[in-house]
Amino acid sequence: MDELELIRQVTANLPTNDSVVVGAGDDCAALKGGKAGELLLFKTDAIVEGVHFTNDTPPEKIGRKALARCLSDIAAMAGTPTAAVVTAGLPKDFDPDHAIAISRGMNELAREHNVAIVGGETTTNPDRILVSVSLLGVVPEKQIALRSGARPGDAIFVTGELGGSLEGRHLDFEPRLEQARWLADRFRPNAMIDVSDGLASDLKHILEASGVGAELRSVSIPISRAARQAAAKSGNGNTPLNRALSDGEDFELLFTLPSKDAVPLLDGWKTQFPDLKLTCIGKTLAERGLRIRDDKTVRPIDIDGYIHFKKSE
Amino acid sequence: MDELELIRQVTANLPTNDSVVVGAGDDCAALKGGKAGELLLFKTDAIVEGVHFTNDTPPEKIGRKALARCLSDIAAMAGTPTAAVVTAGLPKDFDPDHAIAISRGMNELAREHNVAIVGGETTTNPDRILVSVSLLGVVPEKQIALRSGARPGDAIFVTGELGGSLEGRHLDFEPRLEQARWLADRFRPNAMIDVSDGLASDLKHILEASGVGAELRSVSIPISRAARQAAAKSGNGNTPLNRALSDGEDFELLFTLPSKDAVPLLDGWKTQFPDLKLTCIGKTLAERGLRIRDDKTVRPIDIDGYIHFKKSE
Repeated sequence: MDELELIRQVTANLPTNDSVVVGAGDDCAALKGGKAGELLLFKTDAIVEGVHFTNDTPPEKIGRKALARCLSDIAAMAGTPTAAVVTAGLPKDFDPDHAIAISRGMNELAREHNVAIVGGETTTNPDRILVSVSLLGVVPEKQIALRSGARPGDAIFVTGELGGSLEGRHLDFEPRLEQARWLADRFRPNAMIDVSDGLASDLKHILEASGVGAELRSVSIPISRAARQAAAKSGNGNTPLNRALSDGEDFELLFTLPSKDAVPLLDGWKTQFPDLKLTCIGKTLAERGLRIRDDKTVRPIDIDGYIHFKKSE
Repeated sequence: MDELELIRQVTANLPTNDSVVVGAGDDCAALKGGKAGELLLFKTDAIVEGVHFTNDTPPEKIGRKALARCLSDIAAMAGTPTAAVVTAGLPKDFDPDHAIAISRGMNELAREHNVAIVGGETTTNPDRILVSVSLLGVVPEKQIALRSGARPGDAIFVTGELGGSLEGRHLDFEPRLEQARWLADRFRPNAMIDVSDGLASDLKHILEASGVGAELRSVSIPISRAARQAAAKSGNGNTPLNRALSDGEDFELLFTLPSKDAVPLLDGWKTQFPDLKLTCIGKTLAERGLRIRDDKTVRPIDIDGYIHFKKSE
């Protein structure tokens, strides 16, 4: 049994109740029980040494990243974060000043976004650091952005530039909270997600949840400088484009909206966020599957974000 | 720097905002942002193999305990739990059926209390299992029970029988949610906590938060059979009474209320909960400190729950 099958079995029959509007499977859960007209958002996420950071990552950046990932999930629902609780698993002989620095990095980002940290605990975790954050947020009921709302013919947009995040940006990225709130106020995306697994994987989450397909334009994919550098350095034939499609941890917003809104959106965006790129990378289609078009051909993209070339090519 | 000092430093300057009514330091945080007249409760708690369970604990009981501890914290605020998210840190070659069984044990308890499980994730955690649960709840704003409300002259009550929980009960205990809601509806405790660190330690949390002292009566402390057996078995001079005062993980309710309510409470309780003991174990006093009285003497109880004997005794 692989991890996906395990998750499928564990999430197949979860307990639910009348408060649940969106359960496990979207970026956050959405619950009744908030103020009138609002939904509560609820999310948990953990980062582990050796997987999400290394043993020489500065401790402030560990704390920052643990919270930033959850903030990015609240952004993906077009919500506003409110309060967090934190669990830190620390080795027994862990330097207390290091733990305080982890907390300091998290607190600084929390203050930037007016998030309260209202509880937590440390437990002994031999061998490596684990930081788990659970975050609450709110969203106007009418503005919540799910993965499941894309319709055939939507324009597909992504913020920023993609790929190569593990070269450094994954420790410093800015959760796109302000941009997502602005979008939901003015343009109401049909579907939205944050790019954490990689553009192709996360777009597939939207497509599967919405029951549609999509075609991307290869020349339109915004490739980061880090993706180009990483591709040149590794020399394993993994192109910058493939990196932009498949690398994880970009934490940009990926969303779809009716194609008639595409031009007004791009105009409004340039005025509102002149320093952050927004790119239309393709369109959704009734025909299932994810494909990419260049000058001459249309090719499928596999689950890991790699483009399949025909044997004759 | 010891763990307490680390926690003091980390919690000294946490980010806060207008939503926070009770921050870190009580059984749960309490937040505005719920329905009119209600507060949201928010709690996180983690259990780790080798600390809170062993490598031969049945997996269903691991999942059950991880949630039950959080439910007990919601009970201590007189709240009703609503929704949980879960993080499981699992070794790389972990048996998937074992993970499913952990989930099954948690789900069963969640259903008993109408709690939805709305998200979660598995991460790789070499060496040992870690299960972290974050739980939301609600409480009528006027009925919330904090640690800080005890007044001099309150009667002190505890449910159930104490001590020896690690002999087995810590895997099977029933969170006192129904009892706490009944109490808050009818008698409004001045202060409440769940007994997780041990009676003496947790009572001290109430006393310090409330700025009062207390005197217990040694003959009134409800000592469990497990505490007596553990005391007999260990043969280290640790009496059953000391075990009831100092053993952790009882997860009973400990609360204070005005002494005039003591007799009506005991009468009402017997009718409502005939199978669960409720005992008045002493009273709060204006003079600080925690003491215990037997036939002849009044002696202080130290932070770990041990009674100090004078050298001449």
